[in-house]
Amino acid sequence: MKILVINPVGTSRWNETDKKIYQSFASPETEIDVVSLDEGPISIETRKTEAEAIPRIVETALKNHESYDAIIVNCCADPGVDIIRSLIDKPVIGPCESSLAISSTLGKKIGIVTVSKTGIPIFEELVRKLKFEELVVSIRATDLSVPEIEKDRDKTVELLLKECKKSEEEGAEVILLGCTGFAGFAKELEKHLSIPVIDPVGAATKMAETLVSLRLHHSKKRYFS
Amino acid sequence: MKILVINPVGTSRWNETDKKIYQSFASPETEIDVVSLDEGPISIETRKTEAEAIPRIVETALKNHESYDAIIVNCCADPGVDIIRSLIDKPVIGPCESSLAISSTLGKKIGIVTVSKTGIPIFEELVRKLKFEELVVSIRATDLSVPEIEKDRDKTVELLLKECKKSEEEGAEVILLGCTGFAGFAKELEKHLSIPVIDPVGAATKMAETLVSLRLHHSKKRYFS
Amino acid sequence: MKILVINPVGTSRWNETDKKIYQSFASPETEIDVVSLDEGPISIETRKTEAEAIPRIVETALKNHESYDAIIVNCCADPGVDIIRSLIDKPVIGPCESSLAISSTLGKKIGIVTVSKTGIPIFEELVRKLKFEELVVSIRATDLSVPEIEKDRDKTVELLLKECKKSEEEGAEVILLGCTGFAGFAKELEKHLSIPVIDPVGAATKMAETLVSLRLHHSKKRYFS
Amino acid sequence: MKILVINPVGTSRWNETDKKIYQSFASPETEIDVVSLDEGPISIETRKTEAEAIPRIVETALKNHESYDAIIVNCCADPGVDIIRSLIDKPVIGPCESSLAISSTLGKKIGIVTVSKTGIPIFEELVRKLKFEELVVSIRATDLSVPEIEKDRDKTVELLLKECKKSEEEGAEVILLGCTGFAGFAKELEKHLSIPVIDPVGAATKMAETLVSLRLHHSKKRYFS
Amino acid sequence: MKILVINPVGTSRWNETDKKIYQSFASPETEIDVVSLDEGPISIETRKTEAEAIPRIVETALKNHESYDAIIVNCCADPGVDIIRSLIDKPVIGPCESSLAISSTLGKKIGIVTVSKTGIPIFEELVRKLKFEELVVSIRATDLSVPEIEKDRDKTVELLLKECKKSEEEGAEVILLGCTGFAGFAKELEKHLSIPVIDPVGAATKMAETLVSLRLHHSKKRYFS
Amino acid sequence: MKILVINPVGTSRWNETDKKIYQSFASPETEIDVVSLDEGPISIETRKTEAEAIPRIVETALKNHESYDAIIVNCCADPGVDIIRSLIDKPVIGPCESSLAISSTLGKKIGIVTVSKTGIPIFEELVRKLKFEELVVSIRATDLSVPEIEKDRDKTVELLLKECKKSEEEGAEVILLGCTGFAGFAKELEKHLSIPVIDPVGAATKMAETLVSLRLHHSKKRYFS
Repeated sequence: MKILVINPVGTSRWNETDKKIYQSFASPETEIDVVSLDEGPISIETRKTEAEAIPRIVETALKNHESYDAIIVNCCADPGVDIIRSLIDKPVIGPCESSLAISSTLGKKIGIVTVSKTGIPIFEELVRKLKFEELVVSIRATDLSVPEIEKDRDKTVELLLKECKKSEEEGAEVILLGCTGFAGFAKELEKHLSIPVIDPVGAATKMAETLVSLRLHHSKKRYFS
Repeated sequence: MKILVINPVGTSRWNETDKKIYQSFASPETEIDVVSLDEGPISIETRKTEAEAIPRIVETALKNHESYDAIIVNCCADPGVDIIRSLIDKPVIGPCESSLAISSTLGKKIGIVTVSKTGIPIFEELVRKLKFEELVVSIRATDLSVPEIEKDRDKTVELLLKECKKSEEEGAEVILLGCTGFAGFAKELEKHLSIPVIDPVGAATKMAETLVSLRLHHSKKRYFS
Repeated sequence: MKILVINPVGTSRWNETDKKIYQSFASPETEIDVVSLDEGPISIETRKTEAEAIPRIVETALKNHESYDAIIVNCCADPGVDIIRSLIDKPVIGPCESSLAISSTLGKKIGIVTVSKTGIPIFEELVRKLKFEELVVSIRATDLSVPEIEKDRDKTVELLLKECKKSEEEGAEVILLGCTGFAGFAKELEKHLSIPVIDPVGAATKMAETLVSLRLHHSKKRYFS
Repeated sequence: MKILVINPVGTSRWNETDKKIYQSFASPETEIDVVSLDEGPISIETRKTEAEAIPRIVETALKNHESYDAIIVNCCADPGVDIIRSLIDKPVIGPCESSLAISSTLGKKIGIVTVSKTGIPIFEELVRKLKFEELVVSIRATDLSVPEIEKDRDKTVELLLKECKKSEEEGAEVILLGCTGFAGFAKELEKHLSIPVIDPVGAATKMAETLVSLRLHHSKKRYFS
Repeated sequence: MKILVINPVGTSRWNETDKKIYQSFASPETEIDVVSLDEGPISIETRKTEAEAIPRIVETALKNHESYDAIIVNCCADPGVDIIRSLIDKPVIGPCESSLAISSTLGKKIGIVTVSKTGIPIFEELVRKLKFEELVVSIRATDLSVPEIEKDRDKTVELLLKECKKSEEEGAEVILLGCTGFAGFAKELEKHLSIPVIDPVGAATKMAETLVSLRLHHSKKRYFS
Repeated sequence: MKILVINPVGTSRWNETDKKIYQSFASPETEIDVVSLDEGPISIETRKTEAEAIPRIVETALKNHESYDAIIVNCCADPGVDIIRSLIDKPVIGPCESSLAISSTLGKKIGIVTVSKTGIPIFEELVRKLKFEELVVSIRATDLSVPEIEKDRDKTVELLLKECKKSEEEGAEVILLGCTGFAGFAKELEKHLSIPVIDPVGAATKMAETLVSLRLHHSKKRYFS
């Protein structure tokens, strides 16, 4: 099985690292390739950069998908996912949607912890669009920016733990890390918490493998061609 | 008061007609200008054309808004509206959102009738994002394309009436015409129906005047800069 | 355009002041008249005084509406509004319903701040009846009585600000002042808050003008004659 | 135990009959008295007659409640019930609310069948105010007027059965007869249906006895004095 | 009228006490008998003990119901109630469901206070299954075990009051004691609170009498044979 | 990876067939074992047989889980799943919950088609307990019994197709086959439908592999030990 990961940023500098992270979650027989946009923002943290990236994500999918079984868009706002589904008849995976789906089997009150506060209303809208608002009880942010995540991993863990604990106080039974930049942090956080933590990259990888393996396609009644 | 209407299409051929329609709903002291995109699709009827138009709508708003008091995006999918709100501190009006708001004061079961069936899931998602799903009881489509609307007005009225009546059977107490291309049809339809019909262009114009007049701004807690 | 405002109290002493406030929000071509009840309570703050006022509000509407284009009932519980709609085929405006409709375009989490705590369950019920419970996230009260509002405006601002800030902590992105006695306070409050504040008298006036201008009528399927 | 039934009509002509019907549902040790309004409408079938009756229902309750343990307002719109609860510290029973409560233990999809179609939106609003909208799946009307019910009982049964069966097709697992004028019809209908039918007068009587017997009072947090 | 109470525990030691408590709530003409399981857990506080008890509760009902008019299962998780309804055509009463139904007429925001924290998710699921999630605003636990309740009644009152008050802060207008082991505590708690408190044993007894008296049966559309 | 499938029936006659079906969906490196109950019903189609099976399912899980990485209960009512989660710290998979989770990524309106009509209210309650009621728009039954499914596969396909198409008319964008006895039918049905069909055995197998692979555990805040 071959999965194409689209990095929705205008730089290829993280492609190798991301490939390793995705591969670490994949089954042995799954092959991962990562491509980034020809041009575009460095990270998606505002409504504007997201909107600018979307047509390029779609174009990148159309240009590169031929030899792949599934496509993952490597961003927790699931940008462009709906559109690609209406154009290409292969599984197209959003990390947020996949993480919500898997979280819903681990507990019935989900807390989302994302990077910056500007993302909170965007997650609220996404959760409602996806019809998961009965399951999501808390949406919080660390107020990190994406590039800061990797700079000081200890500080990132500390800030994440603080928000995860507040989310637990607000009722969360399971935490969804609401940024693909948080990939690789879940198990570290679980050591300090009594509830499970979902890695969005892990969730996306497994959902891609599941859909390909079960030969399932997105509904054309929702994602019209 | 000066209102900028952005026609989210890559042609200026309808700008004059649209200006007249908007002006017909506006108060005497309101001045309307219509601009279209430098380039873009002829009409927004798929998720893909919508996504491609959005960054250009935003750009057009940023380039042209200076001397205006409010901006209306002339499309019932309200494309780019959220993003412009996060960038410009003036009322930015979506015809769908305005129509829903006004409809909610006329009845408590709203039916939406739009052009093509591909738009139905997009309206479902928009209605949920806007938190109006308790009020909207029916979403239907004529299966016209936007350019066909004006070609044969009698046929358009006939097709619209058919869907409006089905919507009424599904409980609708008020009808929202879910395409700005349907501007000018509401009063004709009301003659044949026992329930009110909302013109999205009329609703958008009045909501723009209302917000400017009351000096109201979109919440920065939702539309972060 | 001529709008009739019904002051649902048994005294005409505030009619002149109210006329000025309403006129301040109206378009130049709109003429406002205010009438009060022949007899009735001094203010509506309990379920009992509301019920006693309602038949008199209806009677006052029936007696006075002839030369007007729309009717506004000057109270945020929207008393009698539904009944008058079932009897008179002109726009009949409730300040609460209008304010909710306009607020819904400014943010997606509305906070209501009203006068006395006894009004809180009444607003909860009204919000559910109007199908806005997904949008309203907070209902609070200053514990002022209506006559106290004007006595010491500085204290009123202070008490309102306190509740607005608590409402913001509870998630509110936009505040609706839940008493027509709070007319004229919104802009003062906005100076001290980062979110928009809706004046119910402004909202009602603009909604009346909107419905008259668009020649819209309440749905007879909901407001049966 | 003594229960006061308030007939919300301006005639005493049905008081004796109603007393017998209520007594037929009551426990042996319960005594029922029925009073009507000094003046008022013959039946409550519009928003206007309901509003006019309410202050008189409240006044009748205040004047007559002294020697009684509970009050029932004999109308399925539960008119004035909330207000009396805020004034008198005894159980005040609405037939609709009681019927909904009891129905909720017999099935999880409730159908309401009322007299006239004008009552449908009023029931929709009442059901939402009472927070039973998840349980109520169907609201229908026979299009009888209250006085017609008793004139031709066979025809009434026939019309009721027709609507009950349609309600069952819409999912109803239990039927609530939405008019106290339908008292005494439930058992006849059950003979022809496979689902239980709730008599609103029976439900109100038993709920009154239950609350008095358990010495329970309405919450002052909702029904403020 | 004869009511069979099934004590879902494998000991008859509390049968006499429970008979007295149930009889204290019953009408003079109602006769109560209590039976326990031939074998089973001492108390139901985990998902496992509940599941083990259920087939035995059903078996006990089938073996003993012959001469009774209604059956009450003496546990606030309402274990086995649905199943017995599908097998026996008599009212089968769950204390939680009955308490919720009666509470819904006293206020519109219900708080549940149960024994141990492990019960909280079980109540959340039960409340949703029963379709009362709009009415229930708070579910809390004392962290007592059932056997501890009676050991030190003063301490139990103290712990219950603490949770009732927190529930009131969370909005509760009426409290439902979420364990039949709390029978007899409601009136003591009401002395220290401003809101009503529902005794689940009282509620179950009165609902049983109501259904028998009104000759009502559970819907076979929900509880299939 | 080793997965234990518990066949919740008192016969081992289908164990081999079921092992083959599960293995057909599993990754090459996954090993499946199927055990049935020492004693129990032949199939779970009523509330009573489900309740009787549950303690034995739990017991079977406790006795056999040692050398396995995850447990699947082979029934679409997910019987005993919650209880086993509270006792064993390994992924415990319910086919219904897994299928709902995966379906939610393929469309936003799910239709469930199960065997017998008696199962419909049970699915309604399960869907609400799992908090998927916003996503599930239709629940239908073929009125086959489980043993009939395999007897005449052509007739089963025909009956399934009939209900799938009605479900699609009711809005379904994706179909979930609501019985593990329907394993192996999905791809045949997809040939005749325009929407995807989820095999509950396939979904359960992939969700088990996903949770084991991501080292995820059910939340102890929901499934208390």
